[in-house]
Amino acid sequence: MRIAVLGVGLIGGSIGLAARRHLPHVEVAGYDRDDAVLAAALDRGAVSEPATSVAAAVDRADACFACAPVGALPGLVGEALTAASAGCVVTDVGSTKQTIVEAIADERFVGGHPIAGSESQGVEASREDLFDGATWYLTPGARSSGVLYGSLHALLGGLGATPVAIAPEAHDRLMATVSHLPHVIANVLVEQAADPAFQQLPRVGPSFRDLTRVAGANSDIWTDIYMSNADAIADAIDAMGGRLDEIASLLRTRDAAAMERWNEWARVQRNRMLEVGATGGRIYELRVSVPNRPGVVAELAVALGSGGVNITDMRLAPAPDNRSGAISFWVSGERSRARAAALIEALGFPVASEQ
Amino acid sequence: MRIAVLGVGLIGGSIGLAARRHLPHVEVAGYDRDDAVLAAALDRGAVSEPATSVAAAVDRADACFACAPVGALPGLVGEALTAASAGCVVTDVGSTKQTIVEAIADERFVGGHPIAGSESQGVEASREDLFDGATWYLTPGARSSGVLYGSLHALLGGLGATPVAIAPEAHDRLMATVSHLPHVIANVLVEQAADPAFQQLPRVGPSFRDLTRVAGANSDIWTDIYMSNADAIADAIDAMGGRLDEIASLLRTRDAAAMERWNEWARVQRNRMLEVGATGGRIYELRVSVPNRPGVVAELAVALGSGGVNITDMRLAPAPDNRSGAISFWVSGERSRARAAALIEALGFPVASEQ
Repeated sequence: MRIAVLGVGLIGGSIGLAARRHLPHVEVAGYDRDDAVLAAALDRGAVSEPATSVAAAVDRADACFACAPVGALPGLVGEALTAASAGCVVTDVGSTKQTIVEAIADERFVGGHPIAGSESQGVEASREDLFDGATWYLTPGARSSGVLYGSLHALLGGLGATPVAIAPEAHDRLMATVSHLPHVIANVLVEQAADPAFQQLPRVGPSFRDLTRVAGANSDIWTDIYMSNADAIADAIDAMGGRLDEIASLLRTRDAAAMERWNEWARVQRNRMLEVGATGGRIYELRVSVPNRPGVVAELAVALGSGGVNITDMRLAPAPDNRSGAISFWVSGERSRARAAALIEALGFPVASEQ
Repeated sequence: MRIAVLGVGLIGGSIGLAARRHLPHVEVAGYDRDDAVLAAALDRGAVSEPATSVAAAVDRADACFACAPVGALPGLVGEALTAASAGCVVTDVGSTKQTIVEAIADERFVGGHPIAGSESQGVEASREDLFDGATWYLTPGARSSGVLYGSLHALLGGLGATPVAIAPEAHDRLMATVSHLPHVIANVLVEQAADPAFQQLPRVGPSFRDLTRVAGANSDIWTDIYMSNADAIADAIDAMGGRLDEIASLLRTRDAAAMERWNEWARVQRNRMLEVGATGGRIYELRVSVPNRPGVVAELAVALGSGGVNITDMRLAPAPDNRSGAISFWVSGERSRARAAALIEALGFPVASEQ
C-alpha cells in the first residue's frame, strides 16, 4: 500500500510517522511546497519517498492526505484528485468541513479532521503517537464511494485513531463550541489580563496558564479557521454572552445556592465528557443489507456517529449482481450494539447482529 | 522557630512540608477541625506537633497560617489572634483579600494568597515543592507591623515562594480577571458543549480539556470565592461580554485582517506574561530611611509590588531613638534597582543604592 501526504508539517509528518510505525508495509510518499520541510520530514523518517510535485506524490497512491491551512485545501484537494487514480481515496485534515465538502464533488473525496494537535508547530513537533486513541472525524458526502470510505476508515484505525462519521454542518457547529470558541476566549482572557489598569503585570497562576495555552495560536492557520467557520463561531459567542450575563446577575444578587448548583453541574458534565470513549467492551458485528448506490455508507456512518456509536471496524461486500450488497460494522459493547441496530433499522435497512 | 498551621489540607499541608524541608529548625504545630485530616498530615510529615485546638497550635508560635475556605477565615484568623503572642505574625491563604483585610484590624495580621494549587484537593495532594518559585501575594494593611511583615516576607522566601506586596482591592480585581473569570468561563464552556442540540457527545480535544480543567472546581471553596469577590467578577464578566460582542462582529463581517492582528497581539501579550519573573540578574540592595511609624513598610512594599518590582529580600533596622529607622530591600537586576529607587523617591523617602 502507498499513501501520499501533501504538506508534511505537524499533522502530515505525524501521519507519515504513524503509518511507518504501525503499518510497516506502507510506503509514504511526501510532498511539501517548502523543500526544507520535506527534507526535515525525510530526515525524521516521516516520509519514505520524497516527491517534487503533488502529482508525483499522488501517483500510484491508494490514499492521499491533504494537510494544509483550511484556505488552501480546496485547491490542494482538487489538484490531488486530478492526479489520483480511480481507486485512491483523498481526504483532508482541515478543522472546518462545510466549505471543503461543498467545494469538492468527487466520489473519491471524504472530508476528515483528526482531533489531535500540539502547542508546537512544524514537522519537528510531529510524533508517531499523535493519533493514538484520538477521534478522527470523517464527513463522507452523499457522493462519497462507500468502498473508498471503508478503506479510509480502516487506514485511520491502523494509524491508531478512532474514526467517527459526522455530518459537515454538525461537525462545524461542534468545533465552534469545543475548539474555536475556546481559542477566542483564550485571546480575550489574555487581553483582559493585559489591561493597563493592572499597574503590575499579573503573576499568572496555573488556571490562567491552562485557559490561555491556545491564545495567539498560529495566525496563518487560525485566521483561516475563524473565517471558514465565522457564523457558527459568532453564534457560539452569542450563546456564551447570554449565559455570562446570567452568571453576572447571580453574582450581583449574591445567589450562592444557584452558583453552587451550577458549579456542581459543570463538574458532572465535564467528567461525563472526558469519560466518553474511555469504556470498552465485547466487540459485536452488525451485518446490514443495502442497495448498492452511492451515499448509503455515508448515510449509515453518519447516523451511527451522530447517535454516539463508535464503529471500531467496517467492511463492504457487494453482492454478485452488483445492485445490492452488505456492510458489516463492528461496535464495542452491548449497549452500542443495541443502539446501532435501532439506528440502522430506523433508516429502513435490514440488519442482523450477534446477541 | 515555630509556625502554626490551622487547617492542614492541600495548602496547609504543603506549607508544613515546605517548612520542614527547607527550614529544618522550624517546628510545625498543626491543627485541623477534622481529626482524620490532622492524622494524615502527621503521617505525611507535614506536621511535627499535632494540636487539639487553635489556641494550642498558636501557643508559642512565631508565625501562624490560617488555611480555610474564604468564608471561614475571619472567624479563624480572629481566634488565632486572640491566642497569639505580641510577636507572632498571623496570615491567611484566602483567594480574596478585601473582605478579610477589612474585617481584621490588628497590627499582627497580614493578608496573604499563594498562587499555587492543584487539581486535587486534600492533604494527600500536598507537596513540599508546591510553592517553589510561586508568587505569594501579601496585602499588608496600614496597621500591619513592619517588623512582622518583614519576618513573614523572609519566611515565605524560605518556603521557596516569591512574596509580592499588593493592595487588597488591586489583588481582588486581578484575581477576578486571571482566576475567577477563567473558572466561570470553564463552567460555561462545559455547559455549552453539553447542550443536547449536539446529538452526539463531543469527543473533546486538547484545547477544550485545557480550558475546562478547572470547571466544577471544589464547590465549598469556590462558592465562597464567588461570593466574596462577586462584584469584581461580575465586572470582569461584563468586560469579557463586551469584547466577545466585538469579536462576533469581526467574524460576521469576515474581517480577516482584524482577527489576525488581534490573534498576533494575544500571542505577544501571553508570552510577555509568562516571561514575567522568569528573568534574574545581579542582586542590588536599596537602603531607605523611614520614620518609625506603622504603615510605612506596607506603603513601600505595595508601591514596589504595584510597580512590578520583585523584592527578593528585606530587612528592617529601627534606629536607637526608635523614631526613625532603615529598611533594606534587595531586588534582582539593574532595571529593578533603578525602578525601585524611582518609586521610593516618588514617595518622598531618601534612598541609597549600590550602582
